[in-house]
Amino acid sequence: MYLIGERINGMFNDIKTAIQTKDEKIIQQWVEKQLSSVVDALDVSVGPAAENPIDAMVWLVKTIRKFTDITLSIDTTKYEVMQAGIETAGVGKSIINSCSADEENLEKFIPLMKKHNSKMIVLTMTKNGIPRDFSSRVELAANIISKCVENEVDIENIFIDAVILPLNVAQDQCVEVLETISQIKLLSNPAPKTILGLSNVSQKTSSRSLINRTFLVLALSRGLDAAILDVNDRELIISMITAEFLLNKHIYCDNFIDSYLKNKKTK
Amino acid sequence: MYLIGERINGMFNDIKTAIQTKDEKIIQQWVEKQLSSVVDALDVSVGPAAENPIDAMVWLVKTIRKFTDITLSIDTTKYEVMQAGIETAGVGKSIINSCSADEENLEKFIPLMKKHNSKMIVLTMTKNGIPRDFSSRVELAANIISKCVENEVDIENIFIDAVILPLNVAQDQCVEVLETISQIKLLSNPAPKTILGLSNVSQKTSSRSLINRTFLVLALSRGLDAAILDVNDRELIISMITAEFLLNKHIYCDNFIDSYLKNKKTK
Repeated sequence: MYLIGERINGMFNDIKTAIQTKDEKIIQQWVEKQLSSVVDALDVSVGPAAENPIDAMVWLVKTIRKFTDITLSIDTTKYEVMQAGIETAGVGKSIINSCSADEENLEKFIPLMKKHNSKMIVLTMTKNGIPRDFSSRVELAANIISKCVENEVDIENIFIDAVILPLNVAQDQCVEVLETISQIKLLSNPAPKTILGLSNVSQKTSSRSLINRTFLVLALSRGLDAAILDVNDRELIISMITAEFLLNKHIYCDNFIDSYLKNKKTK
Repeated sequence: MYLIGERINGMFNDIKTAIQTKDEKIIQQWVEKQLSSVVDALDVSVGPAAENPIDAMVWLVKTIRKFTDITLSIDTTKYEVMQAGIETAGVGKSIINSCSADEENLEKFIPLMKKHNSKMIVLTMTKNGIPRDFSSRVELAANIISKCVENEVDIENIFIDAVILPLNVAQDQCVEVLETISQIKLLSNPAPKTILGLSNVSQKTSSRSLINRTFLVLALSRGLDAAILDVNDRELIISMITAEFLLNKHIYCDNFIDSYLKNKKTK
C-alpha cells in the first residue's frame, strides 16, 4: 500500500503557526516524525488561512526539502499554488493533490503532471459536487481514465479518489465509496489505482482512530491501493499491515508486523 | 450481525475437564461470561476427546439450559451426537453446526433441521475436502441452495460457511474465502446468509486477536452475516460494531459503541 503522511497541513494549528512565523523547526519535527513510520510520500498543504498561499507553499516545500528527498503530495485546489509546489518539489518527486474530474481541469493539470513527471490524484467529483451514488462516481472514474489514455498519461501514475465524507454527516456515503473502489478496480487492465483521504471519514467523531482503521480495512478488502493518513497512528498502521498479509500481499511469518516495518523502512 | 459465542468447546481444557468431571460451575461461568457480551447463540462442542460424545453432548446442553434459553449451535460432525444435541436444546432453539455440501449429508440433516425448526450451517466442502479456489466453493454454495429450495427449506435459516483456514498454513486461502463470500451474496434474492468460524484464521499465530478482528472487518466488507467467535474479545466486538456503522447498518450517533451494546443487550 502506498502511504502518504497527512500531517504537514496548515489546518493543524502548529503548522499554521510555523508557516506564519517561518519556523523551520516545527516542519523538521513533523518530517522526521512521519519518516520514522512507514511512509511513501508526505502531503503538503498550506491550509485555507495562508495569506499568500504561493509563497507559503514554496517556503514549506523548500523547508521540507532541507530534510528529505521523499515524494511530496502538493495539496491545493489552486493551479498557481500547485504549479509553485510541484516546481519546487523537483522532477519525479511530486504528486498533484488534487484535480477534479472536470474535463477543463484535467486539461490544465495533465500538462503540469507530464512536465514534472508527477503522479496525480483525481477526485470523482466535479464543479457540480460529489455524486451521491457509486455508479455516478464510477462514471466519472471512467471519464478520467479515458481522458488520461487520450493524453498518453500512464495510468500507473494516476490515483483515483472516491471522496469519502464524514461518517457523522453522510453515513450512507461510506458504502457508496466502498462500492466505487470495487468497481474502479474493474475499469481497466492494469486496474486503476485508488486512494482515499482517510481521516475525513472520522471528522468530528469521538472515536477517530477506531473509525479510521476500521474504514481502511473495509476499503482494503475492496482493493484500495493508497491513502493519505496519520502514519503515526500505530494501531492504524498495524491494521493496514495485518490486512495486507490476510490479502496475501506479503508472505506471512510469525513476526509479520516487525518484519514488514523493517522491510519497508529499509526501502 | 449474528454472533455465536465459541467458548463452550471441549477443545479448551477447562471445558474438557468440566465434561469429564460433570462440573456445572465451569459451564455456568462460560454461559454467563458470554451472555455478558453481545451474543445471539452459543456454540456447544464436546471436543474430539469426549469418551461418549452423545452422553457428553446431552449433559452439556442440559447443563447450559439450566442457565439460559438462548439458541445453541450444536457443533459436531456426527449425526447421532447432532440429533441428541438438537433434541435436548428444544424446538426452534438450535443451529445444526455443521453439515457438509455432500448431497447425502444434506439429505440426512435437512429432515432433522425441519423437525426441530433449527437453523443450519452448511460448509462449502465435501468428503473430497475444501476446494482451493473461490469458484469451486461458490459452485458448492449454489448446489447447497438448490438442494434447500428443492426440499422447501427457508433459505433464511441457512448459513453458508466458506471455511477459513489458518493464515500461517494457507495464506492464499483468505482471499479465496473473501471472494467466495462476495459471490455467495449474489446467488439468490434474498441473498443467502454467510458465516465464518472466525478464530480458525489465527490458529497458532502470535497475534490472534489482531488477525481475527482484521479478517472479520475484511469479511464484513464483502457481506459476511454471521460468525462463530470470541464474544469476550472486546477489541473484536468493537471492530465489528464500527464496521457495521460504516456499512450503514445502524444509525450513527457519537456514542455509537455504547448505544449498540446497550440496544443489543436489551433485545
